[in-house]
Amino acid sequence: MSLTFREATEADIPEIVALLRDDELGAARQPDIPAEYARAFARIEADPTTALIVGLQGGRIMATYQLDILHGLSRAGATRAQIEAVRVASELRGQGAGGVLFEDARKRAVAAGASLLQLTSDMSRQEAHAFYERLGFVGSHIGYKLDLRERE
Amino acid sequence: MSLTFREATEADIPEIVALLRDDELGAARQPDIPAEYARAFARIEADPTTALIVGLQGGRIMATYQLDILHGLSRAGATRAQIEAVRVASELRGQGAGGVLFEDARKRAVAAGASLLQLTSDMSRQEAHAFYERLGFVGSHIGYKLDLRERE
Repeated sequence: MSLTFREATEADIPEIVALLRDDELGAARQPDIPAEYARAFARIEADPTTALIVGLQGGRIMATYQLDILHGLSRAGATRAQIEAVRVASELRGQGAGGVLFEDARKRAVAAGASLLQLTSDMSRQEAHAFYERLGFVGSHIGYKLDLRERE
Repeated sequence: MSLTFREATEADIPEIVALLRDDELGAARQPDIPAEYARAFARIEADPTTALIVGLQGGRIMATYQLDILHGLSRAGATRAQIEAVRVASELRGQGAGGVLFEDARKRAVAAGASLLQLTSDMSRQEAHAFYERLGFVGSHIGYKLDLRERE
């Protein structure tokens, strides 16, 4: 499995959104709103602790993830890295692309000084959970979300 | 319950670490390493997307939490806010301090443009889970962690 990873550019947005949409949970969450994605990408570019990464094969974007660096005093002042929005093109699934993607994320996290890598995964993604556990992740926490729009 | 919240200063570090330590899971995670905490605080101050917040009552720090702003393309380019390292002084627990703290976090998250507030909680913290659910949080995810130090 050969995938080359790099930080995303603005020109990559349509391919990244298409990958995010190619998912049973993601489809409904990614409407076709190019101007909103362009604004969101500008916020990512302006944020020194967020990296949006793409994985290429033959010049095509076949995988993506986002890595956030979190600083804090807890856990002895540990720096954490958090993975969000992981996707691998459906035609590459089951061929080791996920392992290659996580190895890239692990290297970037260590380079940023992180001692802990964390992520949350929807409880319905059973196959993903088995994959994370094979990589050594421990599912020790419950991930809670609150939609702030409902409360405005 | 009157608590006044503000961003932490370097002088607050010892009181914040004492609060982080006053916890069944936190005690072992917060060794007495002042120089490390000072370095971690400098990283927090340099990070425009992380805010370390303290809640004061009568001039004493009685609560703390950390709010991270996460930008991304997923969920229609939503900005998320993530709460980490929540603590309320044991003498204030059960008196509504948690609700006041989360209302402060919600306001800061909305002011930062977030449409989603998220956190993870150790599976053993059953009382905290009931509290989050009363606030409207949905425990839809499993939180995974990987200790990067073991793999170096």
